[in-house]
Amino acid sequence: MTQRQPGGFDKHFPGSRKVYLTGGQGGMRVPVREVALAGGRRLQLYDTSGPWTDPDCRLSVHTGLPPLRLGWIEARGDTVAEKRRAATGPHTRFQHSVRQARDGSAVTQLAYARRGLVTPEMEFAAMRENGGQPPITPEFVRREIAAGRAILPANINHPESEPMLIGRRFRVKINANIGNSAVASSIEEEVAKMRWATLWGADTVMDLSTGPNIRTTREWILRNAPVPIGTVPIYEAVRRAGGLPEDLTWEIYRDVLIEQARQGVDYFTIHAGVLRRTLPLIKRRRLGIVSRGGAIMAAWCQTHRRENFLYTHFRDICNILRAYDVAFSLGDGLRPGCIADANDAAQFAELETLGRLTCIAWKFDCQVMIEGPGHVPLNLIAENAARERACCQDAPFYTLGPLVTDIAPAYDHITSAIGGALIAAHGCAMLCYVTPKEHLGLPNRADVKAGVIAHKIAAHAADLARGFPGARDWDDAMSAARGSFRWEDQFRLALDPATARAYHDEALPSTRAKSARYCSMCGPDFCSMKLSRKVCRRQKT
Amino acid sequence: MTQRQPGGFDKHFPGSRKVYLTGGQGGMRVPVREVALAGGRRLQLYDTSGPWTDPDCRLSVHTGLPPLRLGWIEARGDTVAEKRRAATGPHTRFQHSVRQARDGSAVTQLAYARRGLVTPEMEFAAMRENGGQPPITPEFVRREIAAGRAILPANINHPESEPMLIGRRFRVKINANIGNSAVASSIEEEVAKMRWATLWGADTVMDLSTGPNIRTTREWILRNAPVPIGTVPIYEAVRRAGGLPEDLTWEIYRDVLIEQARQGVDYFTIHAGVLRRTLPLIKRRRLGIVSRGGAIMAAWCQTHRRENFLYTHFRDICNILRAYDVAFSLGDGLRPGCIADANDAAQFAELETLGRLTCIAWKFDCQVMIEGPGHVPLNLIAENAARERACCQDAPFYTLGPLVTDIAPAYDHITSAIGGALIAAHGCAMLCYVTPKEHLGLPNRADVKAGVIAHKIAAHAADLARGFPGARDWDDAMSAARGSFRWEDQFRLALDPATARAYHDEALPSTRAKSARYCSMCGPDFCSMKLSRKVCRRQKT
Repeated sequence: MTQRQPGGFDKHFPGSRKVYLTGGQGGMRVPVREVALAGGRRLQLYDTSGPWTDPDCRLSVHTGLPPLRLGWIEARGDTVAEKRRAATGPHTRFQHSVRQARDGSAVTQLAYARRGLVTPEMEFAAMRENGGQPPITPEFVRREIAAGRAILPANINHPESEPMLIGRRFRVKINANIGNSAVASSIEEEVAKMRWATLWGADTVMDLSTGPNIRTTREWILRNAPVPIGTVPIYEAVRRAGGLPEDLTWEIYRDVLIEQARQGVDYFTIHAGVLRRTLPLIKRRRLGIVSRGGAIMAAWCQTHRRENFLYTHFRDICNILRAYDVAFSLGDGLRPGCIADANDAAQFAELETLGRLTCIAWKFDCQVMIEGPGHVPLNLIAENAARERACCQDAPFYTLGPLVTDIAPAYDHITSAIGGALIAAHGCAMLCYVTPKEHLGLPNRADVKAGVIAHKIAAHAADLARGFPGARDWDDAMSAARGSFRWEDQFRLALDPATARAYHDEALPSTRAKSARYCSMCGPDFCSMKLSRKVCRRQKT
Repeated sequence: MTQRQPGGFDKHFPGSRKVYLTGGQGGMRVPVREVALAGGRRLQLYDTSGPWTDPDCRLSVHTGLPPLRLGWIEARGDTVAEKRRAATGPHTRFQHSVRQARDGSAVTQLAYARRGLVTPEMEFAAMRENGGQPPITPEFVRREIAAGRAILPANINHPESEPMLIGRRFRVKINANIGNSAVASSIEEEVAKMRWATLWGADTVMDLSTGPNIRTTREWILRNAPVPIGTVPIYEAVRRAGGLPEDLTWEIYRDVLIEQARQGVDYFTIHAGVLRRTLPLIKRRRLGIVSRGGAIMAAWCQTHRRENFLYTHFRDICNILRAYDVAFSLGDGLRPGCIADANDAAQFAELETLGRLTCIAWKFDCQVMIEGPGHVPLNLIAENAARERACCQDAPFYTLGPLVTDIAPAYDHITSAIGGALIAAHGCAMLCYVTPKEHLGLPNRADVKAGVIAHKIAAHAADLARGFPGARDWDDAMSAARGSFRWEDQFRLALDPATARAYHDEALPSTRAKSARYCSMCGPDFCSMKLSRKVCRRQKT
């Protein structure tokens, strides 16, 4: 079943190979994508694709990825392995034990950070961010986590994942949503989509499945995922309640939380901020509640005339999450779904609730990030970032877009990249991608890629704007290749090398054109770069 | 030869039809695209596609568009018709006379505005912006033009164009570049590209041809263009000088200017701000000069050890432009071509020169806009807008992007839309589109569409951010359609209806799905909108 990965990055990233930075505790190996350029130049880039792109790894989706973090988790001695994981089908051999905290202690990265412990996970993540160089040292990472300004999502039952950071002082991350609905998609497709998304640069993946086989789909995704996996547990809970939000109970929900935590989900979206008293504010809206989880909880509250059980049981939830190190992603169930509803009373009332819940979760040593909108016009984006920061005391902000207009279905990866770039420049830590299919249907492979690339652009643009150490090296390498007419290097350095090359080939397909000192845009006589080099040479003499 | 336009908007914009707002001087007819929605709702949208989408017009590219403005121009009595326009080929019958100002007077919209005259062009443009309603009245338009804060590009020899405004108090506009190079493309292709670009929403088109048949290509484009056409005359001048920048002379350039002005070009990019004394600043740059015109003039200055003749002859140029009402688009020959070079001394030195030239041009009653970068990281964009405003006394800003990172060839329509949206929110009046082919080759039809749509998104997002009267009506109509599951209306209201529908069809192709109260993204049980409507209904009871 296992197969050597043919060629690693080759097909989609020619000239790139997986290399490992080494160092830290126990000879840690931190993956980067190294791009070979002309004249022996090399550029190392942050890599989210995991062992799948290492040609030396023999891997199969039926056995899953190696448990990178297992030794670190065991060595801490604060967890117990309970039993072998049940096989989930005739073709799978997923084999890790299920672990949980010993004696009800918190086994979260936040708990360790507060105790002054620099975990291997923190070291690994520091190396990824900036080669572990100042200012992004392991100790800096520890301090950011301890302060609640960053999270390191790392469920002890997802040892396959490569540690990464979500926080305003680190590289801006992006999340890709996958998952089936009752209408479309299979397990294999979803696993392939997860690998595809991380190949192009997704830093985390959320499995939003609402269709059949939710549990098995998630198991396959987790065992094969080199990145943290998030879910919205209410979806599975509603399935178990027979599809009717009204029939949900805390007990059903709690069981889902525990099962997902034991499978290894790294963060949960929990819509605990949708409160009964804020529902009247929804009446004033043009588009009501567009969050699925938010709408479910609102319907539940109304039917039962009781407060949201995610809110009333919030401390119970904290006790579950701390035993596995599942991070909170406090959901914005009342996020605006259209420009007209942006920054309204309902949205900001919920944000204040999320701030209070953040403080509670922190008391339990749980890691927390805060979800944000949604649809927001450009002029109201800065206020979102500022209010989140103030209400939630610098807990990392994780936004969906925001989309800066409602009029562009089929192009909402672009409306979202515009808003995402701006809010990330204002300090948002992770952007949830939006694909061209948003508002229209479930994304396919091409949509996933388009969504990831648009948001990689937004995230990188924000890294540049925030002056993240080393971020500009990539741009500078590209500019140098442009200035020297190194076409092959320009392709290799592109976010999507094959497409860049294909576009160049359309007009100038010959190999010779790849060393030409012009392109089809201006032709040989009107190339500004060629003229400019002449000008510069003369200036220097 | 002439043919009735089959169906007008139908193929690409189902449910849309051309209607005309009427009013003003002489029963003016101002085109809008009216979208018919369910329940008799209608939405009128700004329309740039010209008579080509009016099924009642009988048109042929061989005879060109009707001369909408000819009567207005003649009625002013300040121009003389010189001779019949020469036919440009065996198949063409372009027939207008060539006109120029009588007695060296200025026949510019700026001159009229300063004299207190509200021209039919101003009325037409005011109606387009906001139905002529306050605050965008004809008199408001006149004041903005008189103050130099807006331009209305309208060469007296391009009577086919439908008047439009470029200025910070008006809707943000976008320009699409077309034009052949020595390597690719034909005349017919370029005319088709111009029509294609305006169909999707380009407000002006620049013909940047540098290849063979420059003059004939431009004639065909002008006679068929319902939007203002811009050029960079230095390209044709270099061609005439045998392809060598060094052999350029003022006389060659002057003749090109006059010929193009007589053909009807509405605005000229003129790189008069590239001065000898600023060239040493280029040495510090990573990527030198990336503007073709800027590089040509820099090479010329160096070779001849003389000042840029566009600068020394600037008053002569003004005298030509005022006689035809060609607007200045003062070129940013030293714009940064990579993130590393953004906002540098060379760029801002040129901007100060452009400010001085603006004042001179205004003395000649010439209309002026200012070109801007380029490649700029998000954190330096606001400074560009503020400096332009200060240096150039509120003359309209017209930027290329800016692109917010260098790493995304094949996706630079997105990097540019991000920067464009932000700088337009800061007051930039027109965005020059960038297509996915930027840095790689000449755009084809699909690239032109992708570039136009990405920048329409950016421009509209900025209109929303600036609170332009009526801009949000479009978003609100879309949101209302979403909330009511009116799928057909959502497609009709989309920037690109056919693509939106095709994406929806991928998962749910049946006609029945077009009235379903869910889509494939969430499936029937998890639709937040459905739940939300229930919640809202209950709140109201």
